[in-house]
Amino acid sequence: MAPAALSPTAQASSHSPQDIKTKAQQQTSRQRFVDTWTIIRNELLDAFKAQGVPPEAVEWYKSSLDYNVPGGKLNRGLSVVDSVEIFKGRPLTDDEYLKAAILGWGVELAYFLVTDDLMDGSITRRGQPCWYRVPKVGNIAVNDGGMLKSCIFVLVKNHFKREPYYVDLLELYQDMAYITETGQLVDLITAPEDNVDLSKFSLNHYKTIVTFKTAFYSFYLPVALAMTMCRMPVRVEQTTPYQIALDILIPLGEYFQIQDDFLDFAGTPEQIGKIGTDIVDNKCSWCVNTTLAVASPAQRAVLNANYGRKDAACEARVKAVFEEVGLREKYEAYEREAYEQLSAMIDEVPEVESVDGGAVLRKEAFRAFLEKVYKRSK
Amino acid sequence: MAPAALSPTAQASSHSPQDIKTKAQQQTSRQRFVDTWTIIRNELLDAFKAQGVPPEAVEWYKSSLDYNVPGGKLNRGLSVVDSVEIFKGRPLTDDEYLKAAILGWGVELAYFLVTDDLMDGSITRRGQPCWYRVPKVGNIAVNDGGMLKSCIFVLVKNHFKREPYYVDLLELYQDMAYITETGQLVDLITAPEDNVDLSKFSLNHYKTIVTFKTAFYSFYLPVALAMTMCRMPVRVEQTTPYQIALDILIPLGEYFQIQDDFLDFAGTPEQIGKIGTDIVDNKCSWCVNTTLAVASPAQRAVLNANYGRKDAACEARVKAVFEEVGLREKYEAYEREAYEQLSAMIDEVPEVESVDGGAVLRKEAFRAFLEKVYKRSK
Repeated sequence: MAPAALSPTAQASSHSPQDIKTKAQQQTSRQRFVDTWTIIRNELLDAFKAQGVPPEAVEWYKSSLDYNVPGGKLNRGLSVVDSVEIFKGRPLTDDEYLKAAILGWGVELAYFLVTDDLMDGSITRRGQPCWYRVPKVGNIAVNDGGMLKSCIFVLVKNHFKREPYYVDLLELYQDMAYITETGQLVDLITAPEDNVDLSKFSLNHYKTIVTFKTAFYSFYLPVALAMTMCRMPVRVEQTTPYQIALDILIPLGEYFQIQDDFLDFAGTPEQIGKIGTDIVDNKCSWCVNTTLAVASPAQRAVLNANYGRKDAACEARVKAVFEEVGLREKYEAYEREAYEQLSAMIDEVPEVESVDGGAVLRKEAFRAFLEKVYKRSK
Repeated sequence: MAPAALSPTAQASSHSPQDIKTKAQQQTSRQRFVDTWTIIRNELLDAFKAQGVPPEAVEWYKSSLDYNVPGGKLNRGLSVVDSVEIFKGRPLTDDEYLKAAILGWGVELAYFLVTDDLMDGSITRRGQPCWYRVPKVGNIAVNDGGMLKSCIFVLVKNHFKREPYYVDLLELYQDMAYITETGQLVDLITAPEDNVDLSKFSLNHYKTIVTFKTAFYSFYLPVALAMTMCRMPVRVEQTTPYQIALDILIPLGEYFQIQDDFLDFAGTPEQIGKIGTDIVDNKCSWCVNTTLAVASPAQRAVLNANYGRKDAACEARVKAVFEEVGLREKYEAYEREAYEQLSAMIDEVPEVESVDGGAVLRKEAFRAFLEKVYKRSK
């Protein structure tokens, strides 16, 4: 499946606690976060220029940064800032805000999207051609992706070198890169677009891909960065805060991706803002894996003959099998159960204090994340 | 130009000091270094498996590691071990050897070669097809390159996390990655193979590419890693050992690449083990840049009409202009001067003591590097 990002316009459901931001507040905090990008971008470009590289290289780098970084939904990045605010339990100072925003932009510098698009042969991202499809870019996108990744470490070095948790930040970004690459490898060798072989698919396989490729990077990383900046302890007696965060955020990321896959099948174009293509693109999606797990031999034969074909009639036959096995009901049951389980886990989060006494691991940070995902329809 | 690697069979010239290893010693130390790779590779694969990824992914990763890492000339990696030995001035303990070898393999995990080959459209490397040209690999090589890079940080974390210089190692590998990517960007946008435009070339441009793409990674990095492991101070009074190393190793790397470019033109296939292709491949080589700097309008017209054409007659016309401007004499003069200057700089290296008193910044480490390069003919 295609890794998805939380929509900023996703409405909080009736379950949302009062401390979740209103839409107006969301827009203000989004704007402040976007404004930080200008500072960061100029900082990166100034340092790049100062090395004495030719002006054409500076221009290229600027184009790559502007094209690939700021245009996304920004939820991963905003989650870092929001989580730091919740953990600290007060508005951030300007210095704290800049630091949290830099860590957030470090997540938004999602270099692997640039290279994944090239490897997956994707056509558009965020409503514009994928970077590698821009004239003159082509395979240079591979190097540009590498440079975007390096930017993270430049920024973290510039702004956190003197912090006692500097090395933890370096390791966190680096560990998540390796995990995300692992997920991409499993995805690429499981479902090559040009070789449809459903015997390679399974819910287990699906879970591995989602966990490694999406959940760690988009769900665990933002909160773990906020926890690190807020100096949450690795262990307090029997309590291990980062492990607790992981135990909630990995299944939450999985829930999010399953929802994304389901909407690709069941959402209307008006609802999801695009036409679902997972079936014709041979994606290892929750829908096909769930259907395969219960399909009769006849139904499996229909899937084998029609999945991953660039043909509307084939796609319709696959969709018919999805309906036959009751995929909609299965999704509803899954969503209900996932929400209840996650909610119960969040209720149990121990409100551990940070090592400097300046922050508390509050349940609300996790609750806000869950409510953003629950019952979103786009 | 193509980044080059020191040949292990390069003979030390008559200028070599007695402490440079004999050929038999070289082979023994090479074998010990190669043996370490087996340990490192299994460590990486065991940790990868332990994450619970499917067996096909483990197999793929193993193939990528075996294909891309151990088959090179290994001089960058061996330089780390050799330099640590010289700085410590005694044989290494087993633990010290393993640590130095891991840092050396971190340099040999030259992930960017895998992606550069794909971006440059190269055909072979080390006498076998480039990884991206292996059946079924294709663009997955991009992700494999990313994973090779991540391996460096996994290994450094596993073996150096408790060392006081751990963060310095992380920064060093990371900084060099960014610099190398910068060099690759300048190279890619200066000399695209499909668009010959010699007005984009200049010796200044050439120098930028060589410095960023080759000299930092292949010359400064190995020695800087050894210095870091040996705990060389950043500053002692007015002396800055890492800056001194940089001031010698960047021009040494430049000399090495100029030599490589010259041999591509002037070396016989028997000598260099390949047929030079820089002219037909439109490479921004020292030869063409040096010739352009002194060419008459008529000679420049010949170069414009014939450089970067996949045609033996065109190549011969370019070579004739190289001979007309006296490129061989220019190279000889350059080499003589470079050797003398570097030799004089090495004589001035202050023998600074490490912060733990266990090592000394010895001139021999630099001398050994220079002698390996000087007057090599392959």
